[in-house]
Amino acid sequence: MSLNNWEQKAQKGRDILQNSIPKQWLLPESRLPPTTQKNVIRFIRESGALSEHELMITDSSATELVREMGRGKLAAEEVVVAFLKRAVVGHQLLNFATEFLADEAIAQARELDRFYKETGRLIGPLHGVPISVKEHVGMKNKTCNTGFVSWIDNIATEDAHLLRLLKDAGAIFHVRTNQPQSLMHLCCSNNITGTTLNPHNRTLTPGGSSGGEGASIGFKCSPLGVGTDIGGSIRCPAAFCGGYGFRPTAMRNPMAGIQVACIGQETIHGVVGPMASTSVDDLELFQRAVLDQVPWEEETSLMPVPWSNVIPSWDITIGIMWDDGIVRPHPPITRALRMAKEKLVRAGINIVDWKPYDHERGWKIISALYFPDGGALTRKTLAESGEPARPLTEWALSYSRPTPLTHPEAWTLQHERDTYRDEYQAALKWHQVDFVLGPAYPAAAAVMGESQYWNYTAIWNMTDMPAVTFPSGLAVDPGLDALTEQDKKYIPRNEIDKREWEKYQSPARYENAPIALQLAGRHFKDEETLATAKLVDKIIKDGVRGLKL
Amino acid sequence: MSLNNWEQKAQKGRDILQNSIPKQWLLPESRLPPTTQKNVIRFIRESGALSEHELMITDSSATELVREMGRGKLAAEEVVVAFLKRAVVGHQLLNFATEFLADEAIAQARELDRFYKETGRLIGPLHGVPISVKEHVGMKNKTCNTGFVSWIDNIATEDAHLLRLLKDAGAIFHVRTNQPQSLMHLCCSNNITGTTLNPHNRTLTPGGSSGGEGASIGFKCSPLGVGTDIGGSIRCPAAFCGGYGFRPTAMRNPMAGIQVACIGQETIHGVVGPMASTSVDDLELFQRAVLDQVPWEEETSLMPVPWSNVIPSWDITIGIMWDDGIVRPHPPITRALRMAKEKLVRAGINIVDWKPYDHERGWKIISALYFPDGGALTRKTLAESGEPARPLTEWALSYSRPTPLTHPEAWTLQHERDTYRDEYQAALKWHQVDFVLGPAYPAAAAVMGESQYWNYTAIWNMTDMPAVTFPSGLAVDPGLDALTEQDKKYIPRNEIDKREWEKYQSPARYENAPIALQLAGRHFKDEETLATAKLVDKIIKDGVRGLKL
Repeated sequence: MSLNNWEQKAQKGRDILQNSIPKQWLLPESRLPPTTQKNVIRFIRESGALSEHELMITDSSATELVREMGRGKLAAEEVVVAFLKRAVVGHQLLNFATEFLADEAIAQARELDRFYKETGRLIGPLHGVPISVKEHVGMKNKTCNTGFVSWIDNIATEDAHLLRLLKDAGAIFHVRTNQPQSLMHLCCSNNITGTTLNPHNRTLTPGGSSGGEGASIGFKCSPLGVGTDIGGSIRCPAAFCGGYGFRPTAMRNPMAGIQVACIGQETIHGVVGPMASTSVDDLELFQRAVLDQVPWEEETSLMPVPWSNVIPSWDITIGIMWDDGIVRPHPPITRALRMAKEKLVRAGINIVDWKPYDHERGWKIISALYFPDGGALTRKTLAESGEPARPLTEWALSYSRPTPLTHPEAWTLQHERDTYRDEYQAALKWHQVDFVLGPAYPAAAAVMGESQYWNYTAIWNMTDMPAVTFPSGLAVDPGLDALTEQDKKYIPRNEIDKREWEKYQSPARYENAPIALQLAGRHFKDEETLATAKLVDKIIKDGVRGLKL
Repeated sequence: MSLNNWEQKAQKGRDILQNSIPKQWLLPESRLPPTTQKNVIRFIRESGALSEHELMITDSSATELVREMGRGKLAAEEVVVAFLKRAVVGHQLLNFATEFLADEAIAQARELDRFYKETGRLIGPLHGVPISVKEHVGMKNKTCNTGFVSWIDNIATEDAHLLRLLKDAGAIFHVRTNQPQSLMHLCCSNNITGTTLNPHNRTLTPGGSSGGEGASIGFKCSPLGVGTDIGGSIRCPAAFCGGYGFRPTAMRNPMAGIQVACIGQETIHGVVGPMASTSVDDLELFQRAVLDQVPWEEETSLMPVPWSNVIPSWDITIGIMWDDGIVRPHPPITRALRMAKEKLVRAGINIVDWKPYDHERGWKIISALYFPDGGALTRKTLAESGEPARPLTEWALSYSRPTPLTHPEAWTLQHERDTYRDEYQAALKWHQVDFVLGPAYPAAAAVMGESQYWNYTAIWNMTDMPAVTFPSGLAVDPGLDALTEQDKKYIPRNEIDKREWEKYQSPARYENAPIALQLAGRHFKDEETLATAKLVDKIIKDGVRGLKL
């Protein structure tokens, strides 16, 4: 295919997006901030695009919105319209959407309002909650390009299983969101709808691969979003954008109908999970709404494990991982971890140091298992349209040997993967550590195009441990986070460490990036991990006084 | 390597076996039945090798033995000695063992007796139960050849996880049992310790791959055995030998330390599970003893699903599968199914016909996934010693394309596998069928070397449904089961059907083979499947009158 041809196909994707934008809510160019303005978080309030009431709605959590709709204080229609309006402006600033679903969403909201009016009750636990959805999660009769130009004409014949469950619980899908080419970037850039920006600093990436979701929840274009994660793709954009993201243990959330090039690949299981704009509560709300519908009865690959109610416990030990032993985190991360430790100790939580269990070995295994075919299928999918590979696609493909693994080689690696996961579990038990608190990434966020080090998140895919990223409440302050004299003398341990450390030579590059933390729990302890994340989040933000969970 | 060399290595395996046999319990050649005597089931009683008390012990179930040991009526030592004696004679008749563990077993029994004497209680739910173990389930400091001559010097460094749990529950391992070369036969023949025979008819195979176990439980050399199953390898030998076998849903029973050439392969998950000489109760006893020890806390690949107590329910629907649509079962199987239907209907169980859900498609997928490497690793493992491939090894390898699948081809098949499993589950639900009752194999047992059709068992590996084989109480009677005039006119549907049907031209070939049935439950419904198998087994054997479960 000629270049011309792939560009024509890509244009189709842009047309779908452009035609879907509800024009009545677009701000004229003249009212938008200059493209050189990095931080646009406060713009929505300054712009006057939303009323005070709409700002109140969009600043709320899903949990709060459902509660207010249950009391009859809010209608689903006004909720979804408020989020749609915010999403339209957010998209003008950040280019995060691939398709708006305004008409369907409003029609559905009206149905819900009618139901509530007639019955006096909510239709389900997500009644009227607008949820943004990563593009490759199949939506019936809609294109599903998964970030590949060659897939522009791929139409999903069914809603993904997860979306059916969310919809049955009352959720409304109002916007579909951007993802990188191949899905394998911790960044968000493709040849169709382009590059998504970080609302806190538009020279930074929102992270990826659920980067459209990162921007969506970071700008509060939705209270909840659907992301997917095979190496950090939920947690990293949540972290970079100041939101909340949860990677459940694999095979708990339904995967059927999520469209990926390598469908059926299971050397490393991708997961789908929630991202939230304001609280861990919403991550729990999402998980419970999905798993209460016993999805394993239909999708038999899933584990038949109901979502259990777990109350946060004080009787836990959290191990703090200051550094993964491979790449030293940038100073702001360490500052946030110190703050967290101090507050947790003061709150009476048992805190120890966690010495990472040979994360280099973990990375060696998982990185070799991402593309056991040497990336052949990804390259083939690119070649089908002739679109060029993006630099970070090449980067991810470079993790693997360029030639396919033999099956016995892949089996050996799979066995090593299971062994490493068992050993990690045993090490946590041996040290009586229930949760590991650490960085989500070496930096608070990556500068556009620089998302190169995955292993602060990928290690928990490798060990299949549930993990939550959440904001520390701090942001990068080039004054406060300047390199000290000692920092300046730091001698990197290896080439990767050197590369990542040198990115911080000018702290101003990261100005205003929210600093996130990541809490990982033991394999299968999803409920406990969210419960503890809730506890830690509240302690860090509010201290112990008046702590209510 | 020269042929000479592999034969020397194989001799090592035979030496281990010969040296381990407790010679004091061997019967002199002169007292053994002639090798031409087919049925040796009654020989143990006729031989006088065991006392009446020992016969009573070895005819008991594990459940009964534990109960009697708990009452102080039996000691573990006399139990294990009785089974060892029976196993020694059984081995003389059937060649089912690869190694006896008499000294360790007796020493362990004495420990248990001391414990009981001191505390007045049993050490665990399997206190003093002798369990035979398929050779490739790793036993610390013992060879583990997995049926390959090249592995003769492979020494396991640890007990398999399952064995540790069984031992902690009080089990005693008294004999290790034979398996076929490559493990991939429904027969039991290798180049090390040779061929195992069926106790009901020594011209028949005991089945496989857990064929040593089949003979062991069939001759009551142990009340419980450990088998493994990736296409029928637990259920088929249990069926051929008149015993009970259970294939649990994958990833429930611990697999770590089970030695296979293709460790880490997961296109199709093998499982480990119990085989029992006399009852479904014992299969349950085994499962509960294992899963009550929460093995998923250590082996993180397993599903965190406790064993739940399920009481057999009358409120069920059983679909009878008379024929899988590919291969017509032999007349004795149909006779047993008719008898079962009649008794179940009379007992008030809701019985419908089950139309198999495109089992041909299921077989096409699973057979392509057994050797995604085109059998390269198996051939390599054979080549390492130079031993010749056995005919049924070639047979199994012929299921796969001789060249490896590409990874994307394997992924596509894996996705088809999951889709088929989901569709099977949906079909069962749609028809409101809870369990499928059908054949375990087209014949009651296979004539030696003729175990060619796997799909009456493999289909439940494909759909990952729990399945139990159990004796109908009937045996092949060449008079009763002669071909009718109508049978003689049967025109096979396809080449496979022709091959299998022609094997029955002389019913006398199968004389006295026990006729088993197979009950499969829905994916994950392991507890319900065993509970229902118990109900069905009792109804078929005893009718409804005085039914106690």
